[in-house]
Amino acid sequence: MADILHRVGIKAPAADVYEALTTVEGLAGWWTADTRGEGDVLRFRFGTDGFDMKVLDARPGERVLWEVVGGPEEWIGTHVGWDLDRADDYTVILFKHAGWKEPVEFMHHCSTKWAVFLMSLKSLVETGKGAPAPDDVKIDNWN
Amino acid sequence: MADILHRVGIKAPAADVYEALTTVEGLAGWWTADTRGEGDVLRFRFGTDGFDMKVLDARPGERVLWEVVGGPEEWIGTHVGWDLDRADDYTVILFKHAGWKEPVEFMHHCSTKWAVFLMSLKSLVETGKGAPAPDDVKIDNWN
Repeated sequence: MADILHRVGIKAPAADVYEALTTVEGLAGWWTADTRGEGDVLRFRFGTDGFDMKVLDARPGERVLWEVVGGPEEWIGTHVGWDLDRADDYTVILFKHAGWKEPVEFMHHCSTKWAVFLMSLKSLVETGKGAPAPDDVKIDNWN
Repeated sequence: MADILHRVGIKAPAADVYEALTTVEGLAGWWTADTRGEGDVLRFRFGTDGFDMKVLDARPGERVLWEVVGGPEEWIGTHVGWDLDRADDYTVILFKHAGWKEPVEFMHHCSTKWAVFLMSLKSLVETGKGAPAPDDVKIDNWN
């Protein structure tokens, strides 16, 4: 098993970060504009492809945990976790995309892409403007 | 053991990417302006802190491998590898910072920071201008 790890600090209250992780409007502001919610499942689309996340845990200001229930084969059954903490003037996110079976080339791509989207989330919460798909920062020939 | 993985694609010949990874001028253009070479050791400084890398392998247009011989305790003995390949119009870098003993919070930070510096490298090679320290993109309260 292999995990993607990241850490960003956002100069804003934890409640603002939590909102950006748990509302369709917030998520659409930094990950993909095509975000929908259906019960406890969030559906993120990037053109025709995308990811479906089942919300396993959501504790205001503390923690969000998703299980991937739809998307690329390598993602199915993996978990995406967001742990929030306060440090200095920041809400710090410890991010973990856990449970990759193999450290395939696609995992390398997703690791960098998650970093770019975490910076988009930071920008959204701090300035009001993120860079969600389709206007996301491109990192390679896979986008 | 835990690894940091990333993938970026740079619209430039592999020789240009290789140069940015193996010359003091290139490295100073995307990682830290305070870069020096001494024999087979590269010394990267960020203020008073920094990293010393011993070059273990350097194959033009294909591969660069460093061993960390100076720096934070968590980094000592780890390896930083850069594998280059061509895909579409890109030189693709598969990046691996391998051999972390534990997935500590500092590793989360370094993973995101590597992504930011890889985007700086991409920008340097594609446009002539990177964002090396001290003008690097800040990601959290640890910088």
